[in-house]
Amino acid sequence: MIIDELINAIAAKDGNPSVIGLDTCVDYLPEEERAKCTSLAESAKRICDFNFALIDALAPVIPAVKVQVAYYEQYGAEGMAAFRDTLAYAKQKGIYTIADVKRNDIGSTAAAYARAYLEKGAPFEADFVTVNAYLGTDGVKPFVELCEKNDKGIFVLVKTSNPASGELQDKKYESGKTLYDSVADLTDAWGKDLIGTHGYSSVGAVVGATHREQAEDVRAKHPHLFFLIPGYGAQGGKAEDLAVCFKNGVGGIVNSSRGILCAYRKEKYAGKNFAQAALAAAIDMREDIKRCL
Amino acid sequence: MIIDELINAIAAKDGNPSVIGLDTCVDYLPEEERAKCTSLAESAKRICDFNFALIDALAPVIPAVKVQVAYYEQYGAEGMAAFRDTLAYAKQKGIYTIADVKRNDIGSTAAAYARAYLEKGAPFEADFVTVNAYLGTDGVKPFVELCEKNDKGIFVLVKTSNPASGELQDKKYESGKTLYDSVADLTDAWGKDLIGTHGYSSVGAVVGATHREQAEDVRAKHPHLFFLIPGYGAQGGKAEDLAVCFKNGVGGIVNSSRGILCAYRKEKYAGKNFAQAALAAAIDMREDIKRCL
Repeated sequence: MIIDELINAIAAKDGNPSVIGLDTCVDYLPEEERAKCTSLAESAKRICDFNFALIDALAPVIPAVKVQVAYYEQYGAEGMAAFRDTLAYAKQKGIYTIADVKRNDIGSTAAAYARAYLEKGAPFEADFVTVNAYLGTDGVKPFVELCEKNDKGIFVLVKTSNPASGELQDKKYESGKTLYDSVADLTDAWGKDLIGTHGYSSVGAVVGATHREQAEDVRAKHPHLFFLIPGYGAQGGKAEDLAVCFKNGVGGIVNSSRGILCAYRKEKYAGKNFAQAALAAAIDMREDIKRCL
Repeated sequence: MIIDELINAIAAKDGNPSVIGLDTCVDYLPEEERAKCTSLAESAKRICDFNFALIDALAPVIPAVKVQVAYYEQYGAEGMAAFRDTLAYAKQKGIYTIADVKRNDIGSTAAAYARAYLEKGAPFEADFVTVNAYLGTDGVKPFVELCEKNDKGIFVLVKTSNPASGELQDKKYESGKTLYDSVADLTDAWGKDLIGTHGYSSVGAVVGATHREQAEDVRAKHPHLFFLIPGYGAQGGKAEDLAVCFKNGVGGIVNSSRGILCAYRKEKYAGKNFAQAALAAAIDMREDIKRCL
């Protein structure tokens, strides 16, 4: 099952529970590359080259990449081709892929999204996608069905990493349950037939590193949910805080995007090119997290 | 202001408060066209041709089209080019465009999505986009900022049309307010500086035609929210039910997708080609809704 594969890949990469977020935009490229981005097609090409070089450099140490589609959509159809090619290149290099798309819609439309990402041979095929569950079960079911059919996985937005996530998510329903916990309950139900040998389901949850108390709450109540954990690094989440997401060193995968992509601009990694700096930053991140688990 | 323009366009089109949903997929094409869809690029081309013919036929009677991106994403980067070209063609024909994308993310990423759709000259520029507010204010603000800067609009998912929408949306918080009403409150706040001369804000709400009681509730409490109303026709929503979304004949725009795109397969429109059948069905829809307002 794909969730077992991901957990095994983490173990095989020296217990590195981190995923590099390829939120690549023109602003993050080295200056000489930025100068060549004179059209959507040129921007998409330079972004692709940058991603490929990062994947080559990072493949020995990271189990997975998360590719944030918003950064590609802003470069149009050309950007979407770069998104597609980045997912395919990572897969070819033996790296698990998470398409961070947060898609959501009514059933028939959700089925079209699911086909775009989770069908075998889909144009943007990935191992996992992120999904927003505001619409309820019939908006998520088409994704779960393709998880079952094609051995894929999803991460449902439960508690997001942004500052205002509590506005709706932390409020309690009359039952005393928060909205995020209600979504986690549904996520448990959607994934109950997809629990692998490590005890985690291929239907997991997005739980931000920036809200420790809520992360602890979800971990305690939902032992089968594997977490995709954004918010580490640039967003302020610390290894000490996100350790609550894990049990016996397992239970989640932590994302860092800007902290790795733009490591080459940091004093600490001076003298390295962007790929070397990203590798050094990814190793530092791994050690930082492992020391807290 | 864009919301005034849309309301004026409805008036100019004989008071037709309907929007045609171009949820075009290969299955909806006439058989001889379907047979030519042997690759993503061929599928995208045929879908584009179909859309252009529909826009040509419908332009005299409809104020707006809603283009559902999921149906284009399933055809990859080639499909996204068809999505782009469909939006541009509708605009060129004087039709207002709603990119139904339901995007959502943390602030910095939401800003990338907003640039993709609401920036002047954006690759997928539209007049309006749909947005999912599960993440709260900082995930929606980048869209609102571009509404202010570029005179664009958004529709926030408040109460969706699907059967399971009540699972989370109808549940009451401890305050006694439902989740959908809490989202409507936030939507009011986000759009308070974008209220046009007709009394409606360019920051509107998605409210399904299939849940009459909740639609009535939102209408009563949120007089400045203009509604994008899905669920009419194929999903079971009736003109009698959605009339509660309007005051004095104004207040929303009703979407139909399959009911128009596939009208040529109905007995009622036998003998007409797909574009003629769509026109006849759009006129029938207009009369059906107008008789209830």
